Amino acid sequence: MRSVEESPVTRDGKALVLAHDHGLEHGPEQFAGVEERLDPARVFEMATHDAVTALAVGKGLTETYYPSYDDQVNLLAKLNGGSDLWMGDPYSPQNWSVEYADELGADAIGYTIYPGVNREPEMFEDFRPVQEEARERDLPIAMWSYPRGQAVKAHRSPEVIAYAARIAHELGADFAKVKYPRSREAMAHAVDAAAATKVLLSGGSKTSDREFLELVESCMDAGVEGLAVGRNVWQRENPHEILDMLERVVFEGASTDDVL
Amino acid sequence: MRSVEESPVTRDGKALVLAHDHGLEHGPEQFAGVEERLDPARVFEMATHDAVTALAVGKGLTETYYPSYDDQVNLLAKLNGGSDLWMGDPYSPQNWSVEYADELGADAIGYTIYPGVNREPEMFEDFRPVQEEARERDLPIAMWSYPRGQAVKAHRSPEVIAYAARIAHELGADFAKVKYPRSREAMAHAVDAAAATKVLLSGGSKTSDREFLELVESCMDAGVEGLAVGRNVWQRENPHEILDMLERVVFEGASTDDVL
Amino acid sequence: MRSVEESPVTRDGKALVLAHDHGLEHGPEQFAGVEERLDPARVFEMATHDAVTALAVGKGLTETYYPSYDDQVNLLAKLNGGSDLWMGDPYSPQNWSVEYADELGADAIGYTIYPGVNREPEMFEDFRPVQEEARERDLPIAMWSYPRGQAVKAHRSPEVIAYAARIAHELGADFAKVKYPRSREAMAHAVDAAAATKVLLSGGSKTSDREFLELVESCMDAGVEGLAVGRNVWQRENPHEILDMLERVVFEGASTDDVL
Amino acid sequence: MRSVEESPVTRDGKALVLAHDHGLEHGPEQFAGVEERLDPARVFEMATHDAVTALAVGKGLTETYYPSYDDQVNLLAKLNGGSDLWMGDPYSPQNWSVEYADELGADAIGYTIYPGVNREPEMFEDFRPVQEEARERDLPIAMWSYPRGQAVKAHRSPEVIAYAARIAHELGADFAKVKYPRSREAMAHAVDAAAATKVLLSGGSKTSDREFLELVESCMDAGVEGLAVGRNVWQRENPHEILDMLERVVFEGASTDDVL
Amino acid sequence: MRSVEESPVTRDGKALVLAHDHGLEHGPEQFAGVEERLDPARVFEMATHDAVTALAVGKGLTETYYPSYDDQVNLLAKLNGGSDLWMGDPYSPQNWSVEYADELGADAIGYTIYPGVNREPEMFEDFRPVQEEARERDLPIAMWSYPRGQAVKAHRSPEVIAYAARIAHELGADFAKVKYPRSREAMAHAVDAAAATKVLLSGGSKTSDREFLELVESCMDAGVEGLAVGRNVWQRENPHEILDMLERVVFEGASTDDVL
Repeated sequence: MRSVEESPVTRDGKALVLAHDHGLEHGPEQFAGVEERLDPARVFEMATHDAVTALAVGKGLTETYYPSYDDQVNLLAKLNGGSDLWMGDPYSPQNWSVEYADELGADAIGYTIYPGVNREPEMFEDFRPVQEEARERDLPIAMWSYPRGQAVKAHRSPEVIAYAARIAHELGADFAKVKYPRSREAMAHAVDAAAATKVLLSGGSKTSDREFLELVESCMDAGVEGLAVGRNVWQRENPHEILDMLERVVFEGASTDDVL
Repeated sequence: MRSVEESPVTRDGKALVLAHDHGLEHGPEQFAGVEERLDPARVFEMATHDAVTALAVGKGLTETYYPSYDDQVNLLAKLNGGSDLWMGDPYSPQNWSVEYADELGADAIGYTIYPGVNREPEMFEDFRPVQEEARERDLPIAMWSYPRGQAVKAHRSPEVIAYAARIAHELGADFAKVKYPRSREAMAHAVDAAAATKVLLSGGSKTSDREFLELVESCMDAGVEGLAVGRNVWQRENPHEILDMLERVVFEGASTDDVL
Repeated sequence: MRSVEESPVTRDGKALVLAHDHGLEHGPEQFAGVEERLDPARVFEMATHDAVTALAVGKGLTETYYPSYDDQVNLLAKLNGGSDLWMGDPYSPQNWSVEYADELGADAIGYTIYPGVNREPEMFEDFRPVQEEARERDLPIAMWSYPRGQAVKAHRSPEVIAYAARIAHELGADFAKVKYPRSREAMAHAVDAAAATKVLLSGGSKTSDREFLELVESCMDAGVEGLAVGRNVWQRENPHEILDMLERVVFEGASTDDVL
Repeated sequence: MRSVEESPVTRDGKALVLAHDHGLEHGPEQFAGVEERLDPARVFEMATHDAVTALAVGKGLTETYYPSYDDQVNLLAKLNGGSDLWMGDPYSPQNWSVEYADELGADAIGYTIYPGVNREPEMFEDFRPVQEEARERDLPIAMWSYPRGQAVKAHRSPEVIAYAARIAHELGADFAKVKYPRSREAMAHAVDAAAATKVLLSGGSKTSDREFLELVESCMDAGVEGLAVGRNVWQRENPHEILDMLERVVFEGASTDDVL
Repeated sequence: MRSVEESPVTRDGKALVLAHDHGLEHGPEQFAGVEERLDPARVFEMATHDAVTALAVGKGLTETYYPSYDDQVNLLAKLNGGSDLWMGDPYSPQNWSVEYADELGADAIGYTIYPGVNREPEMFEDFRPVQEEARERDLPIAMWSYPRGQAVKAHRSPEVIAYAARIAHELGADFAKVKYPRSREAMAHAVDAAAATKVLLSGGSKTSDREFLELVESCMDAGVEGLAVGRNVWQRENPHEILDMLERVVFEGASTDDVL
C-alpha cells in the first residue's frame, strides 16, 4: 500500500474530493435550479479551487473536459456507476477500464462496493482486477463503501459503517468513503476499524452552511482524512464560498464558528 | 473525445443518419408496400444522396453491399440488435466486433443502450470495451439511448429523455440518439443535459411530410445536431424528395413552410 | 461476403447439402428400420454422389470418417447442436470451434440460431465470433434459422420464415436454411427477404418421392439455392435413387413428372 | 480420431479401467469395511495388476501418488466431478485442466456428461475445449455418458443408453462409458450406435462374483471394448482375485463358468 | 504434491497458523473488548511468536503490514472471503490473485470451499486455476473445507468432516482446515480420509484455556498436523501466554496438564 500522504490527491495528508457523477447516478433532476451546471465545464472550473485535492468524475466527462484541466485538477476516475432509472438489486457496473483511466491521466481511481447486497460476491470479484491493475500502475484506490441489502437494517449504524470502512481496508483500498454514522464517536470507531486505510466522509444531500461545516468539523476531529463532497458544493449558489470555508476547516483546523 | 465537427459523419457540424437495421429489429413486415426495398442495394443507393451524412446498418448488409458504396457512403456500423420475435426483458446483443467493423471500413459505430431495464448493468458493461476499442481506433460513437423497464413509466417524459441524453455523455458517446420528448423545450433541456455530446432525434414511425418536417425543424431549433431517420425515408414512395427537403431544413436552416 | 457462386459447397450456383447430425439432435431412434446407417461410413459414402455439394456433420463424425473422404466430399462443419433428451428452452450449444473445423478440412460452417427464444440474445452473441472467425478463414457460413419460443405462434407462417431468412442475412450468413412456409409464394417472399443470402430449403421428415420432389421443385421455382436434406435421403431404402432424381430437379431444372 | 487400438490405455484392443474417484463423488462412507483403502496408495498398487489398462483418478491423487507409479500404471485423468453433498440439478465441475493433466503424465482423459439435464448445453460447451485440447495433445478421450434429468424417465432403457453412446461419438470421444441397459441385445445396440467410439461398461455397485462376471461376459459378447470398474474391485476383500478373473474374461475370452 | 514437511509454513512437520481474516468475514464487532487489535500491526506482532508457523490474512492487510514483517512472519495468503452482512447462499468470492499474492511474498495460499452449497460446482471451478497457479509457483495450498447447504444437516458429523477432508485431498490441497467433529476418533477418521493431505483443526470461537488446549491435544493425538487459530489467540488478554502453551502442546507433545 503506497503512502497516501505523498499522493497527488491529498495535501498535507488531508483530502477534499469534489464528486460529480450525479448526472449518471441521479440524473438531470439533480440540477434543478442550477441548470447551467449541467455543463461539466462549470464543475471542472470549481475543481481548480485550491481546496479541492481531486475531482471524481466518470469516463465521458473526463474524455471531454479533462484535457483542458489536467494541469489544474487532480483526477479521481470513478470507474463504476449505474442510473437511477434502474430498480434492480443494488449493483454498480464498471464503465471504464483502469488502463484507459490511466491513459487519460487519472491520479487515482474510485470504485463503489455495496457490502451486503445479493451480488456482493460478484462486486468483490469485480473489484479484484481493478485493485490489482491500479496497484500495478501506482494509482491510489478509493472505495465508496456503502452497505445495503436485506440484511442491512441500519445503513448508518456505528457497526455497519465501521464494517464498511474495514472492508475497504481488507480488500486493499487506500481510501474508504463512508456515510456519516450519526455521531463523532461512531466515526472515530470507523476510523479505527479502517486501520491504515484513510476514511473520507461522504457529503450527502445539500444542507445549510452551518450544518454541513459542523458535520465536517466533527468528522475531522474524529480522525477522518477529509471528505468527498458533491451537491453541498455544486448545488449551492456560490460554490467558491463554501470551498473557501471547507479549506479552512479541513486543511487549517478552523472551527465552524471561526469561518461563519 | 474527438471533435465531432471534423467527423466524416457530420457536415458543417450537422448530421443526417439514414438508419436501416429494421430488417433485423422489426422484420420484413416493415417493408409492406415497399417490398423492393427488402433489397438493401436500394437503401445504399438512397444513402448516396448528399443529405445523408452516414448510413447505419448491421454486419450482414455491410459485408455484402458496402464494398460497392464505400466511396459514396459513410458507414455507421450498428453493432448490436435483436429480433422483434423475442419477448424477453429488453436487451440488445452485440452482433459485430468493433475490430471487424473497422476492417470493413466503418466511419463510426452505433450501439443501443436501454437505461432502466433489468439488465442495465450488463448493457453498461457490454458497452465499456466497445467504447474503448472505438476510441482506440478513432471511431466516433453514437448511442441509441432508449430508457425502458418497469421503472420507466413515461418513455418520452422530458426528464427521462434528458436523462437518456446525459447517460450517453457520461458513458462516453459522441452522439446520443433519443426519442422526441414531446416539446421543443424538453428537447432543448435534453440538449443541455447531453453537454458536449451531440443529440440526434430518433425519427420513429412514418408520418406525413409536414408533420415530420415540422418535428425536425423544431428539434433543430432546440439545438440537436441532426436526426437519424429510417422509415420516414425508405418507407416513402419517393425517398429522394424527402431527403431533398430534409437537406434544406437540417443543413440550410429552411423552415417546413419554405420547403413544402 | 464472399461469392457463394464460387464456393466449393455449390455447383453452378446450386446446392444440395446432405445433413447427418440426427444422431446427436434426435438420437438412434431415427435409425429404426435403417440401423446399418448408424454407421456413419454409409452416409459419407452417400455423400460421394455427384448431386451432393456438401455433407453437414458434427465433430465426432468428421474426426473419424472425413480423413477417408476428403477428396470426394465437401465438408459443412455443423458447429452446434444438443440432444433431444433435453427439455429446456430451445438453445444450441457449440461443440466445435471454427479453428478446429478448419484444421479438419471444413469447406463451410453451419450454425443453428433460434430467433425468438428466451436465449435469443445469447445465441446471437455466440454466433458473432463464429461468424467473424469463419470470415477470417474464408469459410462460407450457413445458418439454420429456426424461429421458436413463446412469441412465435406459427413457425411456418410466411412472415416468420421471411423474418428467419432476413435474420440470417442481417447477421452475416451466406446461406439461410429455413423450413418450408407452406406455399411457393411465401418461399419466394423469404428469398426476397434474404436479399443476397442464399436460401436453402430444410428437408424435414421423410415423405413420399412425389411429395418430396414436388416440394423441392416448387422451392427451386421460388428462387431458393437448393436444399439441405437428411432423413428424406438416408432413411430411404435406396438413397442413390432419390439423389439421382434430386440432381435432375435441383441442377438440371427437371420437373417431378420428368423424373418419376 | 486416433486409433484406440494403439492407445496406451488398451491392450489388444480391450480395456479394463480401474476407477477410483469415489472419495470425491461419493465420500468416505464408500470405504466402510475397507477403511485401509482410504489410502490411495492401496488402489494405485491394485492398478499395477496386469489386467488393468488404466487407472481413472482425480487431480489430488495423481499429484500425490502417480509420481511413484508412472512406470507401472497408465493414467486416465478424470477431469471433472462433484461431491455427493450437493443437491443441485446434475452438473459436474471441472477440477483439472487438460494441460496440467498432461504435465502430470496422463495417458488419456475422462470427462462426465449428463445428457438431458437442465445444464446440458453448458456441459456440452464445457466439454468442447477439453476435447479439442486433448486432441491437440494426442490424449484419448473417455466420456462418462450418463443421461439424467426430468425428461429421462428410464436411465437404463435401451434407447437412452444407445443415445448416450451416440452422443459420445458425435461430440468426439474415443470411449463411451455407459450403464448396462439391462440386456445383451440392448448393449449390442448401444455398441452400434456408438459407431467407431468404443463402449465401456460402467461397473456400478458391488455384486457377487458370478453376477458381476456374467455381466462383463455378456457385454463383451455384445461388443463392448471392456469396462470401467471401481467398487466391484476395491470394495472386495481380495481385489487381486477378481482382477485375475476379469483378465481372463476381458482379454482371453473366458466364460464366467471357466473362471469360477 | 510438494513435501509439506519442507514447507516454510510448517516446523518439524507441525503447523500453527494464526488466522486473522475476521475483519472481513465477521466485522469489527469481533474486536469488542480488544479494540486496539483493530490495528493489524498488533496481530502481525503476535505472529512473530516462535510458535506461529504462518499468518493467514487477506490482501489489504498484507499490502500494508507485511513489508515490515516479511523477515519474521511466514505469510499464508487467504485469497477469498466475503462479509457477514451478506445473506445469500454460502459462497466466497476471490479477492486476490495468486500472482499478486506471490509478488507480495506469500509462502502459501489459503482458499475456502463450501462443499454441498448450491454453488458448489462454481466454487470447485473457481478453485481449479488457483490450485494450478499455486503449483506452478510452488506455493503450498490450504483449503478451508467447510460443508454447508441444505443437504448438510450435521456440519460436524464424523462423516461430513471426513468427507470435507477427503475433498481437500481429491482437489489437490496440501492442507485441509476442518472443524472439530466432536470426538478424537472422528478426527482420526478425517485424518485417514485426507490421506496425504495434512489436516488442520479450525480453532473456532474463544473458549477457556483448558477447554481449548484439551481440544488441541486431543486432535494432535488423532494425527492432525496442527491448527489454525484466530479468536482463541487474539481475543485473549494475553496472546503471548496462550501461544507459549500451544507451542508446547503442538510442537513438543506436552499435555494440557503439563502446561497449565
